[in-house]
Amino acid sequence: MKQFFYPRSVAVVGVSEDPANLGRNIVSNLLEFGFQGTIRPVGPRGGRVFDMDIFPSLLALPEAPDMVAVLAPARVVPEILDQCGRLGVKRVVVESGGFSELGEEGRRLEEQVRLKLREHGIRMMGPNGLGVINLEIGLCLPFMTLPAKPRLGGVSLVCQSGGVGSNVIAWLAQAGLGMNKFVSVGNKLDTNENDILAFLLEDPGTSLIYLYMEDLADGRRLMELGRQANKPILLHKANIGGLSADIARSHTASMAVDDAVVTAACCQSGILRVQSRNEFLHAAIALQQPPLKGDRLVVLSRSGGEAVVVADACQKAGFQLPPLSPEIVALIQSRSRAGVIKPMNPLDLGDIFDFTLYQDVAAAFCQDIDIDAIIFNYGPITDVEQEPARAMARKLVELARNYEKPLLISVIGNLAERDFFRHDLGVPVFSFPGEAIRALALARSYCRCQLLPPPASSPPEVPTLAAVDQVLTPHLDTRGPLVLTEALKLIQTLGLATPGWQAVTSAAEAQAAAEALGLPVCLKLSAPSALHKSDLGGVLLNLNSLDSVPEGFRSLEQVAGANLPPGEAWQVVVMQHIEGGMEVIVGAKRDRAFGPMLIFGAGGIWVEVLEDVAMRLAPLDLAAAHELIAETRIYKILQGRRGQPPFDVASLAQNLVLLAALMLQCPQIKEVDLNPVRVFPEGQGSLTLDARIILGEP
Amino acid sequence: MKQFFYPRSVAVVGVSEDPANLGRNIVSNLLEFGFQGTIRPVGPRGGRVFDMDIFPSLLALPEAPDMVAVLAPARVVPEILDQCGRLGVKRVVVESGGFSELGEEGRRLEEQVRLKLREHGIRMMGPNGLGVINLEIGLCLPFMTLPAKPRLGGVSLVCQSGGVGSNVIAWLAQAGLGMNKFVSVGNKLDTNENDILAFLLEDPGTSLIYLYMEDLADGRRLMELGRQANKPILLHKANIGGLSADIARSHTASMAVDDAVVTAACCQSGILRVQSRNEFLHAAIALQQPPLKGDRLVVLSRSGGEAVVVADACQKAGFQLPPLSPEIVALIQSRSRAGVIKPMNPLDLGDIFDFTLYQDVAAAFCQDIDIDAIIFNYGPITDVEQEPARAMARKLVELARNYEKPLLISVIGNLAERDFFRHDLGVPVFSFPGEAIRALALARSYCRCQLLPPPASSPPEVPTLAAVDQVLTPHLDTRGPLVLTEALKLIQTLGLATPGWQAVTSAAEAQAAAEALGLPVCLKLSAPSALHKSDLGGVLLNLNSLDSVPEGFRSLEQVAGANLPPGEAWQVVVMQHIEGGMEVIVGAKRDRAFGPMLIFGAGGIWVEVLEDVAMRLAPLDLAAAHELIAETRIYKILQGRRGQPPFDVASLAQNLVLLAALMLQCPQIKEVDLNPVRVFPEGQGSLTLDARIILGEP
Repeated sequence: MKQFFYPRSVAVVGVSEDPANLGRNIVSNLLEFGFQGTIRPVGPRGGRVFDMDIFPSLLALPEAPDMVAVLAPARVVPEILDQCGRLGVKRVVVESGGFSELGEEGRRLEEQVRLKLREHGIRMMGPNGLGVINLEIGLCLPFMTLPAKPRLGGVSLVCQSGGVGSNVIAWLAQAGLGMNKFVSVGNKLDTNENDILAFLLEDPGTSLIYLYMEDLADGRRLMELGRQANKPILLHKANIGGLSADIARSHTASMAVDDAVVTAACCQSGILRVQSRNEFLHAAIALQQPPLKGDRLVVLSRSGGEAVVVADACQKAGFQLPPLSPEIVALIQSRSRAGVIKPMNPLDLGDIFDFTLYQDVAAAFCQDIDIDAIIFNYGPITDVEQEPARAMARKLVELARNYEKPLLISVIGNLAERDFFRHDLGVPVFSFPGEAIRALALARSYCRCQLLPPPASSPPEVPTLAAVDQVLTPHLDTRGPLVLTEALKLIQTLGLATPGWQAVTSAAEAQAAAEALGLPVCLKLSAPSALHKSDLGGVLLNLNSLDSVPEGFRSLEQVAGANLPPGEAWQVVVMQHIEGGMEVIVGAKRDRAFGPMLIFGAGGIWVEVLEDVAMRLAPLDLAAAHELIAETRIYKILQGRRGQPPFDVASLAQNLVLLAALMLQCPQIKEVDLNPVRVFPEGQGSLTLDARIILGEP
Repeated sequence: MKQFFYPRSVAVVGVSEDPANLGRNIVSNLLEFGFQGTIRPVGPRGGRVFDMDIFPSLLALPEAPDMVAVLAPARVVPEILDQCGRLGVKRVVVESGGFSELGEEGRRLEEQVRLKLREHGIRMMGPNGLGVINLEIGLCLPFMTLPAKPRLGGVSLVCQSGGVGSNVIAWLAQAGLGMNKFVSVGNKLDTNENDILAFLLEDPGTSLIYLYMEDLADGRRLMELGRQANKPILLHKANIGGLSADIARSHTASMAVDDAVVTAACCQSGILRVQSRNEFLHAAIALQQPPLKGDRLVVLSRSGGEAVVVADACQKAGFQLPPLSPEIVALIQSRSRAGVIKPMNPLDLGDIFDFTLYQDVAAAFCQDIDIDAIIFNYGPITDVEQEPARAMARKLVELARNYEKPLLISVIGNLAERDFFRHDLGVPVFSFPGEAIRALALARSYCRCQLLPPPASSPPEVPTLAAVDQVLTPHLDTRGPLVLTEALKLIQTLGLATPGWQAVTSAAEAQAAAEALGLPVCLKLSAPSALHKSDLGGVLLNLNSLDSVPEGFRSLEQVAGANLPPGEAWQVVVMQHIEGGMEVIVGAKRDRAFGPMLIFGAGGIWVEVLEDVAMRLAPLDLAAAHELIAETRIYKILQGRRGQPPFDVASLAQNLVLLAALMLQCPQIKEVDLNPVRVFPEGQGSLTLDARIILGEP
């Protein structure tokens, strides 16, 4: 991958003398960004551009280039790859559009390209992207003029959209944040975001990575990279709408939208999820500070009101504003007239015009090991104060650096002073102190991510795999829901407890079953088309007398007749009616990008109202299952409250672990939805009252 | 109030020749902002400043000024007011600090000032503020140099903090938003934010009002003003932390924090609550557009990625992106090569270099009555495109204005182009399209606020007021909780149903009561110090046998002995044990700023877990009570779901209306907390199982 970022020579294919020619822009960008290697413009019409010859073809070049950038029509790309093959070029960046994004013909062309890559052993970026930038050597391949050039720094970008990417570059420059590398991945025909991410994680020039993605190539690999990362990865995953619509089809999905999977995956792998460019930019400023060691902040402000705003933000973000140390209080008191400054935190130095006091107080903050970060509101200042205020700020930045103390600066009132920080001090600043606090909260998340437990070392296995397989074998070709009886059988085989039940096909059998199981019972219609049986009236709860059972059977018979397709086989499940305990939902789902994940939450009638569902990607051991359960709000109740005994959380955790193993070992299962599972007080286990299992591809 | 903003002459008291003198800054600001009236500097040391004489005292002025601005030491302010009185000056702005914010002595000084104001019939702003600005006539009284001067426009500001205020002014200038008037209210000794707000609502120059407040003088009056307003009021209420800590003492309060009251009050009165300056600035941009008539947006973008970002934001904010009309589809197809532009919404015109097409499409959007607003992503553009792109943008802004179509512009990539919009076109723009959508959502809230139903016309009365008064009379001096028996009696007298209950003082009486009430029963300790009786073990539920009742009584006797102060009287309430139905919380609370408000939500064990509580300020009629109930998530369950019968919401609404009347008519009641109230299926009413009532001042 490194060769994509550090070529010594680049040939640009698709250049002409025409001022509207886009390939020309690539050459111009390379010149503008000061590319340190050789540039070879190539285009069939020849001519000259920026004082360089345009070679008629790659084969006409005086020497083989390290890398070829292509902005020729899609249909000639295979031929250009052949030429690269003949020259021994191993790295090609294709920026041309006109491939799979335009439909069937484009997809065929991509197939052709794939073959050529394999044939010649070439690695490719694109097509349909803006290519690569590496500020370290002035490599800049986008075919559009970039609106601004950031300074060289540690932020590297991987963007699925060129437009978004170039906008982010403009904002890095605006914010005074330094950039290192940039890739616009386009259609990801050969290299995808994970390939690039893996490289950037090892890249010494990169200290922070921003990913803008509209889809994810391989969520599992992304998670692995996240876990290995020793630098922050900020994922801006867009396109949440389409995906959520796609999945909102079935009941569980309407809560467990794909976007929630991305969020869960980020949490589990230490990837920071950001929801906007602004959030990323602010986080990048905070993450370039020394690591945050704790929650204790000190606020230094010249405006009391701005201090209140910071305190509000701290309150919301869960930061502490501990009292100032006696030494610092003494320092302030010795240097100011009595009563003018209240030595508290936030510290409002208000009308104090003595900037050396700011400086001395700030120095004391830097040295105080009980302060984890300094929030500094710079300004408002008058014209005559500019010089001493700037000197004080310069000193404060220096001190914080020396003491490795995170320092977050907001410029108040004198907005033009932001340029002094960004350009003269090389320190990006915030527009509002609230932004600084929210960014610091994200930096805190990053520090906490570093403490994530390792993933379950050996994925748990289904102890009864052979028996489970036996239940599934008749359904090898099933795409869709199992009937209730099969779903219950599968769950029991897996090792989950259910109330006693029998499947019957006549009123008499129903009555006999009820007698055998003991009253009260409930009756449930089991048929391929009765997935949402409650909505059809296909569930009768709490039948208390033996007489009511055959009557119930006959009413379900009518429901079946009225609702099922003619001729569809159906049965009735007679099940012990269970009271007491608490209803939860236990589920699993296979995601296209991330594979199997487990779901736990409030069940029964509370599902829709509470929307209290947590999610975690498989594999899952008992510890992780406990963590998953503890993420829900109902965990408070499950732990036992106000003298009530705690519920049998261990049994739920065991269920989740078994379900995780099932999803890992039986790829034909798409979704499992156990709702409700009734959990009883500690030691008394849990019972699955209803099961919905869907087979097929995710 | 108008005279504060339109004086023909201003005397500034506290000016000297010293360059560090702050009164001098007031004079300099008046000159800088082009004050159209006479300026008279006044200061005991005399001299000259900015080519003007400094008069030794107000009494030495050649004529009486319309207004006096004071930045003299606090102790001389009463004397200055006397001088004003002698001259007949009726408007004084006191910017000096050193009053109540510094403690007891300052408070005494304020009392003196108040007397002088009354004596001379003077109205005053301040003290301890930045004074007044009116850009219409160049009036600018702050004693600090303002970092920037916004253009004249419709935004007026009322700020409790001068620092925050001057920062907002800087940001208005930066964003290209026009400002009209500004007041820094300071200690609000004589005029407060509501006085100023009432004036600004009538002020023709003001089209939008931003309030930054750290406390609220009179919440009820603010709400009345909000209801009367025909222009948007944006409230930025800071200092949430301190207030929430203050109130987090008692159980209900931990959910019903003051800040939630502010939010509820804003909702009810059509005031828009913003949480940050950024949110305000964005909202101000959106609110200066023509009113939004519906949810249907169209997005015009040059970057596909930015279009995805907008679609995500629309999804989150609940906007629609309807398909383009056949006419617009035909227009696009007739003007572009087949397949290059997909005529969808968001519309990505991508690489199209023909800006007249943008213009024609935009014109069609403006004329389409099925489109409620246009979201326009401007850029990225190349240098050569700047001229035609700007011409297109200018035309689009003009068209949207003519057709009164809201148009929200984000500048992508070429960030410097923001200045073209702000300064050349006078149109503020967004930095990211997501911000535009969030701002538009706030504008939509404003439009919806205009449709608020009028408040309950005649506050409901307690039909049993005499009886209620009788229960309360013995407690005229009580500050704190009523004992359980009294609380239950009050609730019943009010007209709310409870299960049958009796108060007993011996085991034998308890058994007799249980026999009379019927089994099962529960026992509850009733004593002044047993407010949280469950936590003490003072509640025994579901006693099923007569034998267990005396036993239960004796165990509560032990609880009383162990927990109550020696000698405190106690009783035991024997109450019918009720099963079934659903547990809710019904409550009321008196807020210092907003007066009585009603609370409804999920009850019992769900209170803490769900945190599903809605709030509404009294008065409350049945319709408003229904709305309050419908704001909770559990309303879904109360309506009846999946074939279950609906619950008796009408009975809950009736309870709330009675409680509202109680709070309005009995000001000695501070808080009522009925939890749980058990509500049964429609027609079967509800029962209050437990009641906590606290008397005293809020």
